[in-house]
Amino acid sequence: MVKAAIMGHGTVGSGVYEVFEMNAEKITRVLGVPVEVKYVLDLRDFSALPYGNKFVTDFSVIENDPEISVVAEVMGGVGAAYEFTKRCLQAGKSVCTSNKELVATRGEELLRIAQAHGVNYMFEASVGGGIPIIRPMLQCLAANEFDEICGILNGTTNYILTQMIHNGVTFEDALKQAQLNGYAEKDPTADIEGHDACRKICILSDLAFGDKFDPDAVSCEGITKITLEDVANADKLGCVIKLLGRSVRCEDGTAYAYVAPHLIHKESPLAAVEDVFNAIMINGNATGEVMFYGKGAGKLATASAVVADMMDCMEHRDHRRRIMWGDGSRCLLRPLDTLQSAWYVRFKGSQKDMEAVLPVESVTEPVDGVVVVKTSKLATADMQKKIQQLNACGKVCAAMRML
Amino acid sequence: MVKAAIMGHGTVGSGVYEVFEMNAEKITRVLGVPVEVKYVLDLRDFSALPYGNKFVTDFSVIENDPEISVVAEVMGGVGAAYEFTKRCLQAGKSVCTSNKELVATRGEELLRIAQAHGVNYMFEASVGGGIPIIRPMLQCLAANEFDEICGILNGTTNYILTQMIHNGVTFEDALKQAQLNGYAEKDPTADIEGHDACRKICILSDLAFGDKFDPDAVSCEGITKITLEDVANADKLGCVIKLLGRSVRCEDGTAYAYVAPHLIHKESPLAAVEDVFNAIMINGNATGEVMFYGKGAGKLATASAVVADMMDCMEHRDHRRRIMWGDGSRCLLRPLDTLQSAWYVRFKGSQKDMEAVLPVESVTEPVDGVVVVKTSKLATADMQKKIQQLNACGKVCAAMRML
Repeated sequence: MVKAAIMGHGTVGSGVYEVFEMNAEKITRVLGVPVEVKYVLDLRDFSALPYGNKFVTDFSVIENDPEISVVAEVMGGVGAAYEFTKRCLQAGKSVCTSNKELVATRGEELLRIAQAHGVNYMFEASVGGGIPIIRPMLQCLAANEFDEICGILNGTTNYILTQMIHNGVTFEDALKQAQLNGYAEKDPTADIEGHDACRKICILSDLAFGDKFDPDAVSCEGITKITLEDVANADKLGCVIKLLGRSVRCEDGTAYAYVAPHLIHKESPLAAVEDVFNAIMINGNATGEVMFYGKGAGKLATASAVVADMMDCMEHRDHRRRIMWGDGSRCLLRPLDTLQSAWYVRFKGSQKDMEAVLPVESVTEPVDGVVVVKTSKLATADMQKKIQQLNACGKVCAAMRML
Repeated sequence: MVKAAIMGHGTVGSGVYEVFEMNAEKITRVLGVPVEVKYVLDLRDFSALPYGNKFVTDFSVIENDPEISVVAEVMGGVGAAYEFTKRCLQAGKSVCTSNKELVATRGEELLRIAQAHGVNYMFEASVGGGIPIIRPMLQCLAANEFDEICGILNGTTNYILTQMIHNGVTFEDALKQAQLNGYAEKDPTADIEGHDACRKICILSDLAFGDKFDPDAVSCEGITKITLEDVANADKLGCVIKLLGRSVRCEDGTAYAYVAPHLIHKESPLAAVEDVFNAIMINGNATGEVMFYGKGAGKLATASAVVADMMDCMEHRDHRRRIMWGDGSRCLLRPLDTLQSAWYVRFKGSQKDMEAVLPVESVTEPVDGVVVVKTSKLATADMQKKIQQLNACGKVCAAMRML
């Protein structure tokens, strides 16, 4: 019998308990021994639950119990979650988490503490929910240098964009619908402004390129400015609009990393990713393009990834699994100024002015004084200058990168 | 310095050497020490190569060198490859392979030998080439019971079908094109008759359901009978034709497993998998649908998966990684008779006869005496009887499951 504890009994936390119950037979088969969840830490009153007797409100009960070797941190946030994680690791307990905010901001530090105490800090569930991504990237693709990572990393925004694309619903109405369906929070800022995707692309970039990408330093644009007009224009160009987290390695070992909406061609496998699904495309210099697809959120999907990490810790109790992560001393993040992209531009003004400023690859018939173009490749800094120039003789209503 | 050997210098074998050279820096970064390929075993003369001095023709040189802890078996076949793999494992060397034929037929035995000698037998590259699939399934999805596995597991047939679907090329011409492009062998039987996909679905089923699925016992239908007429009919039904390897778990722990062409809806992420790409969809009872996509073959993609396995063995030299695989004593394969599916049927004969026999869900206008229907769900055995009935009053030209 292996004993474990769960810190936090919200959506994911209760899911972790449920997965241990639901798949007890399978888990015992894999580990060779059954797992007992001995404690659930939460300040709220859950005494009415069938497992109400397992609840504790005092963290030190878990911290001081030598029987507990593995702990799930599914509290969220960076306050108590950070404190408790650190103390668990220092007490010689492995910690597995879905807390992307904590991993993105202090993952490297917590990994170092885990290493110093001969235990594991694992966070498969922090990116892509139930989609296997961190372990495949670090282990199965270990023989590759990574050239690019590009993913639909947020289910809420992908649901909203799917509604806009397929049902002609405006951004505002699609957001309301997402909130009604429980896909978006009351305060949807972290999703729709791209912050959630930003944390995830930072975690993936950290691991792929071997040093710290700070979410606060990474350029981050959400989907609030996207209109049905842009959606329709994208369609005419054979594209759909998707919010991507993307990082691209440069020859010198630095990497661009950013979050922004993109027009992507309908033939791309990423274009077929709809509703709350996520997908992450990784380009390795030997493997080429590999894509991972599935539910990026959801109670049981995310919980099962936390449980799988816990099982891995239980199987390898005597053997710390190595996760490479730089010590945060090198700055690998490269400013976007020199990143070359083709651009979609919607411009209110004269076609002549537009063509004088932009390197046009294709242009649509102006409708009601609005011209839409696809440019040839142009660095971000150049594009920003050209937008200023264009705004002097008209109005750039939208500008997005095309992939 | 860790020392390794490669057995076989064909496409994948030379790729393994190339990946170790090309990504030496990355590999050293991950392992903390460099890797030297000390021997390459091949009977042919490669002395002109820059690394010609590493070639040996005598297996016992590798077998008897205590410096060699990890060996790549990339010879193919089940003769010498089986013999050498067994002897390496018995000599305390881990073996990593892309040899799906050997893994599908004797994987369970070789894993047991590896276990007995405290070493690893790893075969990530045997399914899906460079696509991470075995490790994610066994580790990241370990907390799930698997309900279904369904994949495009053969690049050659997917290339041929893509040509038929998008360019209206006949099967015969598409096969010739695949051979010219090096995607199909001179003798394409193993690909086009589905045997290659069959080995792979057997390996995945073995691992997912915990016991042996024998490729010889698994129902296997290739793509040689598919016509452009079927491709066009599928399109009208909003579908594309794909060759799938599929296994489905039943309540009692047995599982259906088979290879056959299917009509799949264009909205399915599997429908967007084109050319030589592969994709594997796994349905876990907690995670839901997860899909893995990438190049299912190719020198460097497959080789990099072998190298990643070798790196894993090198990192965990003191610690055998557990792969669950039954001992082959239980028969989990369930006959297809009771598998329920909707069917696509192309029938030369009268619509009235067809509608009298089949539970029709939708039917097309007959053209030149040919009727196309989609049935409601029907067990395989019932479908077979109905095909006999129909053949008494006309001709069933094609019958395929729809997903």
